[in-house]
Amino acid sequence: MEKEKIMSILEGAFDKGREAIPGGAVATYIPELGKADKNNLGLSICTKYGEHYNIGDTTTRFTIQSISKIISLALALEHMGVEKVFAKVGMEPSGEAFNSLVELDLNSNKPFNPMINSGALTVSSLLLPEFTFEQMTDYTRKVCLDPEIAINEAVFQSEMSHISRNRAIAYLLESKGIIETDVEGSLELYTKMCSLNVTAESLSNFGMILATGGINPKTGERVISGRTVAIIKTIMLTCGMYDGSGEFAVRVGIPTKSGVGGGLLSVVDDRMGIGVYGPSLDEKGNCIAGRPLLQHLSEELGLHIFNRSRF
Amino acid sequence: MEKEKIMSILEGAFDKGREAIPGGAVATYIPELGKADKNNLGLSICTKYGEHYNIGDTTTRFTIQSISKIISLALALEHMGVEKVFAKVGMEPSGEAFNSLVELDLNSNKPFNPMINSGALTVSSLLLPEFTFEQMTDYTRKVCLDPEIAINEAVFQSEMSHISRNRAIAYLLESKGIIETDVEGSLELYTKMCSLNVTAESLSNFGMILATGGINPKTGERVISGRTVAIIKTIMLTCGMYDGSGEFAVRVGIPTKSGVGGGLLSVVDDRMGIGVYGPSLDEKGNCIAGRPLLQHLSEELGLHIFNRSRF
Amino acid sequence: MEKEKIMSILEGAFDKGREAIPGGAVATYIPELGKADKNNLGLSICTKYGEHYNIGDTTTRFTIQSISKIISLALALEHMGVEKVFAKVGMEPSGEAFNSLVELDLNSNKPFNPMINSGALTVSSLLLPEFTFEQMTDYTRKVCLDPEIAINEAVFQSEMSHISRNRAIAYLLESKGIIETDVEGSLELYTKMCSLNVTAESLSNFGMILATGGINPKTGERVISGRTVAIIKTIMLTCGMYDGSGEFAVRVGIPTKSGVGGGLLSVVDDRMGIGVYGPSLDEKGNCIAGRPLLQHLSEELGLHIFNRSRF
Amino acid sequence: MEKEKIMSILEGAFDKGREAIPGGAVATYIPELGKADKNNLGLSICTKYGEHYNIGDTTTRFTIQSISKIISLALALEHMGVEKVFAKVGMEPSGEAFNSLVELDLNSNKPFNPMINSGALTVSSLLLPEFTFEQMTDYTRKVCLDPEIAINEAVFQSEMSHISRNRAIAYLLESKGIIETDVEGSLELYTKMCSLNVTAESLSNFGMILATGGINPKTGERVISGRTVAIIKTIMLTCGMYDGSGEFAVRVGIPTKSGVGGGLLSVVDDRMGIGVYGPSLDEKGNCIAGRPLLQHLSEELGLHIFNRSRF
Repeated sequence: MEKEKIMSILEGAFDKGREAIPGGAVATYIPELGKADKNNLGLSICTKYGEHYNIGDTTTRFTIQSISKIISLALALEHMGVEKVFAKVGMEPSGEAFNSLVELDLNSNKPFNPMINSGALTVSSLLLPEFTFEQMTDYTRKVCLDPEIAINEAVFQSEMSHISRNRAIAYLLESKGIIETDVEGSLELYTKMCSLNVTAESLSNFGMILATGGINPKTGERVISGRTVAIIKTIMLTCGMYDGSGEFAVRVGIPTKSGVGGGLLSVVDDRMGIGVYGPSLDEKGNCIAGRPLLQHLSEELGLHIFNRSRF
Repeated sequence: MEKEKIMSILEGAFDKGREAIPGGAVATYIPELGKADKNNLGLSICTKYGEHYNIGDTTTRFTIQSISKIISLALALEHMGVEKVFAKVGMEPSGEAFNSLVELDLNSNKPFNPMINSGALTVSSLLLPEFTFEQMTDYTRKVCLDPEIAINEAVFQSEMSHISRNRAIAYLLESKGIIETDVEGSLELYTKMCSLNVTAESLSNFGMILATGGINPKTGERVISGRTVAIIKTIMLTCGMYDGSGEFAVRVGIPTKSGVGGGLLSVVDDRMGIGVYGPSLDEKGNCIAGRPLLQHLSEELGLHIFNRSRF
Repeated sequence: MEKEKIMSILEGAFDKGREAIPGGAVATYIPELGKADKNNLGLSICTKYGEHYNIGDTTTRFTIQSISKIISLALALEHMGVEKVFAKVGMEPSGEAFNSLVELDLNSNKPFNPMINSGALTVSSLLLPEFTFEQMTDYTRKVCLDPEIAINEAVFQSEMSHISRNRAIAYLLESKGIIETDVEGSLELYTKMCSLNVTAESLSNFGMILATGGINPKTGERVISGRTVAIIKTIMLTCGMYDGSGEFAVRVGIPTKSGVGGGLLSVVDDRMGIGVYGPSLDEKGNCIAGRPLLQHLSEELGLHIFNRSRF
Repeated sequence: MEKEKIMSILEGAFDKGREAIPGGAVATYIPELGKADKNNLGLSICTKYGEHYNIGDTTTRFTIQSISKIISLALALEHMGVEKVFAKVGMEPSGEAFNSLVELDLNSNKPFNPMINSGALTVSSLLLPEFTFEQMTDYTRKVCLDPEIAINEAVFQSEMSHISRNRAIAYLLESKGIIETDVEGSLELYTKMCSLNVTAESLSNFGMILATGGINPKTGERVISGRTVAIIKTIMLTCGMYDGSGEFAVRVGIPTKSGVGGGLLSVVDDRMGIGVYGPSLDEKGNCIAGRPLLQHLSEELGLHIFNRSRF
């Protein structure tokens, strides 16, 4: 496909996304997040050959939030192995909202999966004795090919002062023997990771590395093992969009992870990574522009995992 | 790959499956199902070019059970369209066991997805005014390329006399305005569909048609629309193995639907359909031989949806 | 206390009740119930010496609804004994609304108590092989000292055509082995008992017999055993007002059972029975006039179970 | 009744209690509690005329645990009034175990009642800015007529190091805006109150004061207001024995509050207070000797709230 034709499809998708913005709202449960400009929208694509396509606010910095759950999970899987991680946290979609305590208590052995807060806090507790926050920031820079990633101190402080619910979850995990390391340290590490500033372009780079099965095509270097990448893409597909994951998989069919900072990380296997930034969120906490934008791309470019172009 | 090499991998997988059989048990909640021979095991593969590989009990008849949920969903999607069906039933994995009432009541608008009993009963109620059971049997024969599929009367009668829980679910659906057609008729249609006798080979044929995106390669005829097939494969991946779906997707990565009769229907997109028969079940109600058998195939042949052979 | 003084307190209570009527609404989930006159209000008191005090619509007939759960429980306890009944149904308040299925499923052994629908259907299934509906009607006439009690056919038919939820509950009970007799028969018997026509005065008579510990003071005849009466009064106190039972016990302190037909049956132990009729209901399904009316009586006459007049 | 006759009944009850001891076990979730002597048993009765009857280990000190919830609730009601307290915590029995988080999350406005941990922590948070622990200890001494009540430091320290679950509950309450004061301070105050050392005799004194409606008959002094006492007795009856409260009310009919230290506080209205100490607990966390012991007393002396001696 010619570059011109591609750009015209991307612009069509971008317009679909922009139309949806007024129907959403920026996150306000953390005051600092409420300062985002609701009308921002950025779309960045990085192909498996390292080529970039950017439209809109693709260099604006915003906090990565829940997308960091993917990065922490990757590091834990690489460092500790599959069985050790999944002894503490499940792999099942939960049908519950991202911050629910109920399902943790009903299913008492372990959190349903590493994408809900209870699961991500558990992963954080596993990493705590092994890595400093600085090392984890370096790892994030490496997988995003973005050396400028750093903590957003204002957001971090704001989150730390509205952390009661996550703290409740973390102590519940301790009471069940799931968190065995320092609870407050795990909470802080988790919150710091959520407060890293990225761009739509950083996310498209990370998505591209997941698309290649873990290799940076610009250097030929393996960044993440193939097994870890396969696990992560599967969990993004089944659990990446909170309690809207199933519908997103059916209608869009692109493994995607969202964050309440407005970011979306998408992977079209063996083809491209996609990064989106749009802080206007739908009622499930996902970037509201994302669904129509990515659905348009999926349909026009044949990106659905089970409905790819077959010619 | 040479045929000899392939057969040797299939036999390795078959052996892994056989080793797991003693750890399971045949379903006994319906007496007639309890009569199955626990040691039966069949593996049938049909490539997208229509070529068959069979090992073990691939022509033994057994009841299709929950795998019929896929066929009913396909027919409903084809006949009524996506939006009409999903107005009545969701697309979200539930984290609940296959016969749970709890989640229906907590999430009061509609059943989580069409693979749990409440969702499948809802689909059945949509089909009831449009199709006779005979027409649905014909459709099953067509998608399975198996003209000998017919009802197992003994199992059907046995199920009808142990149907209290499904009847409870169905009336609850009526009380919520989700089932709007005849409740007893919907229950009977659902139960009859579960009682159809298939073979591992029938299932591999059906899987092959899903793998091609809906086309029978032997005739070039389109059997199911591409859109319906994409939806079905997605839902098999996210919801096909009851509350073990997420782990199965991570570890095996092949969209699969199980039935308590011992059947497994698997699809390796663009490559093959796989049918398994093994009535010894694990505690979630899935064929216990299936996991090790399919995981072996997935690893040896590179069939994981996100970890395919890349050469 | 002089009769004049008493009447003035009763009139004060009646006025408090009347003021609350506009804030409620008649039940409409069963069309026939929706025909009641929202502004009706009747208060009937029968002392342990058989003396009556009546204000307002005390002879208007209305359906007994859930208050029949008390009568069926009494008959079951008398006929089968405490242990046999409570082997099938618990004695614990549930914190759930009257028609919830959730708690039945989470606490899988038996319904929480005989005042929620699942528990009452269970009691009905125990009575089914032992008593005809005619015999149970006679028993109701006897405990209410009202030979004119009879079924309201229009309400009964209306309820039978909106019975999906109760039918769901009943089949769920069968699937768990809790209902072991005919499900449809149990449902019909339960619904017929709910459709009996009573008056506020009938209820005050029944309340008076509970207040005396089971004796009709007019004849000296024992109508119910002391043990059964003690159990019933306790369960009325802990479970009689649906999920508002605890607050009612604290604030009013008079064991009371409500029905969505607008009736209230109250017992002031060793002093009097109280019957109220007011079809305007609050959002929990209790007669909205009842709380202020009975709270006024409780405070003015010292009727709170733990705050009685001590002189 | 002659004193001799009474003592013989008490001894009969005591023997019934002793027989039940081997079927239970001391609490071990807090190591320090596990040091109690399982075979200890004490029964102390204080009549409304101030007369004492003691059998067994009635002067052994043990920690008051959940019985302190009653004392804190009394103080909060006296100091802040009914409406302010119940704006933060409900009055409904929950059907849940004492330390459940689930019901708090499903019923999101406030804890079901002040006897479950979430409710008691809420009451503690209301008291925190108003009272020091020393003042609350003094209040406890006053209502128990026991100037020697003091904190058990070993138990307090042991509980503080196993407090994750309560901490989780407390932060969840903060996240919902229910706890508005210092969370850690509320937790510590609550835990200190649970760690107060009492005796069976202290509890019988407190029970006696509740039985009189709040007056110390030895001095004629009003210790607690009549309204507060009525509320407390009602809540003891409906919620005092965890998820066994309903059955205890039916079978024993004496408002009672238990603590995992082995204590029971019972009130026979207008007649007596009863204190029991027996650290062997049943599976719901109640003194296992208590049920048979108190049921025997209830039956022999006519103490059931709805089945009193009527001569």
